[in-house]
Amino acid sequence: MKKVDHIGIAVKDIESALPYYIETLSLTLLGIEEVESQKVKVAFIDAGNIKLELLEPTNEDSPVAKFIEKRGEGIHHVAFGVTDIRSRMAELKEKGVRLLQDEPKPGAGGAQVAFMHPKSSYGVLYELCDKGE
Amino acid sequence: MKKVDHIGIAVKDIESALPYYIETLSLTLLGIEEVESQKVKVAFIDAGNIKLELLEPTNEDSPVAKFIEKRGEGIHHVAFGVTDIRSRMAELKEKGVRLLQDEPKPGAGGAQVAFMHPKSSYGVLYELCDKGE
Repeated sequence: MKKVDHIGIAVKDIESALPYYIETLSLTLLGIEEVESQKVKVAFIDAGNIKLELLEPTNEDSPVAKFIEKRGEGIHHVAFGVTDIRSRMAELKEKGVRLLQDEPKPGAGGAQVAFMHPKSSYGVLYELCDKGE
Repeated sequence: MKKVDHIGIAVKDIESALPYYIETLSLTLLGIEEVESQKVKVAFIDAGNIKLELLEPTNEDSPVAKFIEKRGEGIHHVAFGVTDIRSRMAELKEKGVRLLQDEPKPGAGGAQVAFMHPKSSYGVLYELCDKGE
């Protein structure tokens, strides 16, 4: 884990939340895209040294929809930027970490991503995010 | 808001959680201290570009104890590094943001801190953290 790439934040509606980030906090919107594998629309916001990733569910089956239903809007995950994600996943598994999937999945911005189970991580949903850089 | 200083993570027991961060994730412990104003013991961990701040309640009245009781261990807040915290607080108030206190409070590492109410921030507890740098 070399650094934190972004913090994922679950919101009901990106359109409603954006003015808070852009106008009130004076941060910059980098772009909006849809991530089919996670059933979310995401808005990336530049927070200087890391990005904030607003996540709006596009479907009621989306893990983010379930998160909001259970806990309300709020911080959803923290993503570490990694290289060679398959090796990182193998190392973590060897160390006893439970991963939410066996294979990396396509994430936002063309990244390959995988999540660690919060039960392995003292309640935090950590993502591994490999942009092939 | 120029950058994110740290992510606060509520844990029941720092001693139990540290091996996950240090041995499993291969991150570096920067130091441990007690913050009386928040009734927490904190461990700062270097995550490259930002810090992770593990928060262990030292008292059952601690806001972090109440957070864990209600939601379990997990991500508690995101702290923006700021300068001139009183001016930032005044600006935010003027923009309609509800702050959890009128005056900055002493935080970890000699910082002055203030929190925004999650109701103003789409469910996220944001901290302003001024280290006088």
